[in-house]
Amino acid sequence: MVAPPAASYAQETVPPAPDFARVVDEGTNRSQVMVLAQHMTDVIGPRLTNSPQMRTAEDWAVAKFAEWGLANARKEGFDFGRGWSIERSSVRMMTPRALQLTAIPIAWTPATQGTLTAPVIVAPLSKREHFAAWRGKLGGRIVMISAPGATVRERTDAPFKRLTGEDIAKLDTFEEPRHDPARNARMQAALTFEEELDAFLKAEGALAFARMSYRDNKLLHGEGYLHRTGASLPGVEIAAEDYRRLARLAASGTPPTLEIVSDVSFHDGNAEAYNILADIPGTDRAAGYVMAGAHYDSWVAGDGAVDNAAGSAMVMEAARILKAMGVRPKRTIRFALWNGEEQGLYGSIAYIERNLARRPAPAARENALQTYVNQTQRYPVTPLAGYRDLAAYFNIDNGSGRLRGIHAENNAAAVPKLREWLSPFAPMGSGAVVFGETGGTDHQFMAALGLPAFQFVQDPLDYNSTTHHSSADTFDHLVPADMRQGAMVLAWMLLQAANADAPLPRNPLPRQPLPTNPFATPDPNAE
Amino acid sequence: MVAPPAASYAQETVPPAPDFARVVDEGTNRSQVMVLAQHMTDVIGPRLTNSPQMRTAEDWAVAKFAEWGLANARKEGFDFGRGWSIERSSVRMMTPRALQLTAIPIAWTPATQGTLTAPVIVAPLSKREHFAAWRGKLGGRIVMISAPGATVRERTDAPFKRLTGEDIAKLDTFEEPRHDPARNARMQAALTFEEELDAFLKAEGALAFARMSYRDNKLLHGEGYLHRTGASLPGVEIAAEDYRRLARLAASGTPPTLEIVSDVSFHDGNAEAYNILADIPGTDRAAGYVMAGAHYDSWVAGDGAVDNAAGSAMVMEAARILKAMGVRPKRTIRFALWNGEEQGLYGSIAYIERNLARRPAPAARENALQTYVNQTQRYPVTPLAGYRDLAAYFNIDNGSGRLRGIHAENNAAAVPKLREWLSPFAPMGSGAVVFGETGGTDHQFMAALGLPAFQFVQDPLDYNSTTHHSSADTFDHLVPADMRQGAMVLAWMLLQAANADAPLPRNPLPRQPLPTNPFATPDPNAE
Repeated sequence: MVAPPAASYAQETVPPAPDFARVVDEGTNRSQVMVLAQHMTDVIGPRLTNSPQMRTAEDWAVAKFAEWGLANARKEGFDFGRGWSIERSSVRMMTPRALQLTAIPIAWTPATQGTLTAPVIVAPLSKREHFAAWRGKLGGRIVMISAPGATVRERTDAPFKRLTGEDIAKLDTFEEPRHDPARNARMQAALTFEEELDAFLKAEGALAFARMSYRDNKLLHGEGYLHRTGASLPGVEIAAEDYRRLARLAASGTPPTLEIVSDVSFHDGNAEAYNILADIPGTDRAAGYVMAGAHYDSWVAGDGAVDNAAGSAMVMEAARILKAMGVRPKRTIRFALWNGEEQGLYGSIAYIERNLARRPAPAARENALQTYVNQTQRYPVTPLAGYRDLAAYFNIDNGSGRLRGIHAENNAAAVPKLREWLSPFAPMGSGAVVFGETGGTDHQFMAALGLPAFQFVQDPLDYNSTTHHSSADTFDHLVPADMRQGAMVLAWMLLQAANADAPLPRNPLPRQPLPTNPFATPDPNAE
Repeated sequence: MVAPPAASYAQETVPPAPDFARVVDEGTNRSQVMVLAQHMTDVIGPRLTNSPQMRTAEDWAVAKFAEWGLANARKEGFDFGRGWSIERSSVRMMTPRALQLTAIPIAWTPATQGTLTAPVIVAPLSKREHFAAWRGKLGGRIVMISAPGATVRERTDAPFKRLTGEDIAKLDTFEEPRHDPARNARMQAALTFEEELDAFLKAEGALAFARMSYRDNKLLHGEGYLHRTGASLPGVEIAAEDYRRLARLAASGTPPTLEIVSDVSFHDGNAEAYNILADIPGTDRAAGYVMAGAHYDSWVAGDGAVDNAAGSAMVMEAARILKAMGVRPKRTIRFALWNGEEQGLYGSIAYIERNLARRPAPAARENALQTYVNQTQRYPVTPLAGYRDLAAYFNIDNGSGRLRGIHAENNAAAVPKLREWLSPFAPMGSGAVVFGETGGTDHQFMAALGLPAFQFVQDPLDYNSTTHHSSADTFDHLVPADMRQGAMVLAWMLLQAANADAPLPRNPLPRQPLPTNPFATPDPNAE
């Protein structure tokens, strides 16, 4: 029997669905996260800080936030250094036989001014103690600075990984925060070394340098850290297979001759880099704000897709979802796209220094990553008025992998709320709250101030094996369903934190440098 | 207490060690297999049949065999086609943004004559039925002929593999040899299609074509099969990530413009390719000969290391080991480096036709791989005088991986002897004799004549995942200890077969084409 027609039901009288269902509806049925990620990667391309492509990306993001109706979509500048970009490049072996090599200019190295042709010399140089042995031998050469090693690594684990429950459980541990002066000294030495090497090679009359890719199978990266000054000599990273072939040929006879064309440019109009910020204003001005952030800048070998158009697109999509829902949160919800992360968390440190807390300035001019290495050791910390206002910060910077949970970042008191908020995502694979802290990205120095700043647990996918910083970091390595899930989790967590009765619990404001463990076992990798 | 000095023992009166111990001594303590492989790869480079590099490789191998004192080191020519080589290449996206792509010219495509710049069109063309839809649309374009698909494959198995006992046990099965006319027809259509596509694109006024790499993560290959005539249009293979980006950009707006520089050359002086042969003469001329072989030619994206400098170096090293031992075998031991294998087993087929057995000539001129596809279906087979003489053939063509056993190739009667001969290698990981047959390389059409021709079971290492035909097929992907083991196994098996009382049992000379299974389940992949 056919049912009689039901009485019609005016659309506007449908009772609104609960927030969670609306986040899922907007985030699945009208998702834009892959459209956003594609624009950042395919259309704009890699977004090295202060490059022309990053300038385009900055304006595009501000315009998008404004188009969606967010308040105060803006750029906040900070001093960074020079812009740099690649127009064209080619590295060929000319003798003993003609061979096109797989290679890329290293960031912030200068152009070759046409074609540079010279024989190579293999001179492994990884610390200043190595200089003496090569003094007087490098003039007129392309210096191969990496020790090649003999063979490829035998990869017997899967390149594409999702976390098991056991993997996640291992993250749920407490490790005492400790300062490791020896490790910091080593990191600083490595950073200083890039400048020293550049000066040494130039003084020796070397024409250019080449280093070996740290991944096998023809992948490239091209990171460089001399963005303040630029390097003196053209430099290229050569695929491991090609580099090792050159080294073997050099060892067994006449050194090969390379031809390098590195058509790159510096862009010096404006040394400021910009964080992009935009708000959904809260109804209770005294309640502070919550924030999600991801770094927007990338390296240049690929298109900066998993690192970190993925996180940037999730942050933007969370903004779009919440705005489309018409939320009127108690606390302001802020969206941040950080800049200059890859060179040492410059953007988030600038935000902290401007809005959250100040630390004493470094004693002397610091090079690229020294601020990063030393950040937590400079005291006293002087909290600013904004320190009180930040009620929660969520960071995304581990690729497009599904959000499986969240790191409580040693903030024990926050665990129950984080667990409660995440719980509806159990059927989408998320829900774990693990105690351990994580570093190396933009929540790190907020958490180090005691602030409730968290990073998510993500499935690594092929991030570690293949894509991180590499020439394969392209849009097609993003997993769409995971990207949609991530944006929904982010939107939901922000909304819960914005509307919570109380802000998330905090750790104490730190009052002195981290203690050093006098009984620490020496690092077996230390030289 | 110190022992009193022993009576001295003249070197020449030391009783000779048994043959097995001498193979191991020569093959480990004075191994040359990696030196040989390095010369073929690093120094000579890729060895595309009839390329200048292959000409160098041919002469080098003959000279090496002669230097070691092998008898009758020689080249045996057969008709192949044109030589071809790459001097320089570059593919760049020019609009919507400048980007150096990872790409390689496809074998036997012509040069661009300088720089070719044109917009792309994505026109997936994989069979002639697709032509109609694109007629009139390809003029002035670089035609992207592959369907790009959306994303990378998620590799959740290890790229580097060694076989387990269970893996090897699975190979020990009997499968009835069957002719599959539908499969052969599909293979032939695919082969014919390369010519048809070339003619179609030229007739349509297309300027060049591009196809997508079949591996992700920026690997390249560049195989092409028009070595008889050469292709009409320049063609490049583009890394999957770069190809998919082009396709997405083309789909979402103005098609990107590419700039292609393909500086390649044809070499037409001599259409003959050469197998390299050399002998250790036997003491009993009537007892026939045993033989080991590996194809020496390669593709050009890498240096043809695992495919197949590995096998070629093992064959040469086996010759060197046996010669250094001063063996005087009953049967002649012959060493063969085949040519033209990659285009359809040309070299081993030429050897068969000249020395072992004749099949009727093809009805009409056949293109590159048709001979290969049809070889076992042409009857009657006319054995030559040499048919009786070949007492055993051992082939190597699956990379540098350790020899774990041998395929009996459906020759049940040979199993006991093969097992006996291999048994001393159990502590080095070898010893399994598995029943199944293998194809696709140079023992195939000898085994198809009933001859005792075998291929080894090898650990795949990264052959399937990464190196086979790819730009990562370089010397550093060879595993030295495995290479040494392979050469020793080969030397030993040859010596056993050469000195055996009786030649290995054979299968019957085939008298008609393989039967077709009328009840075969249709191939679900057939279109």
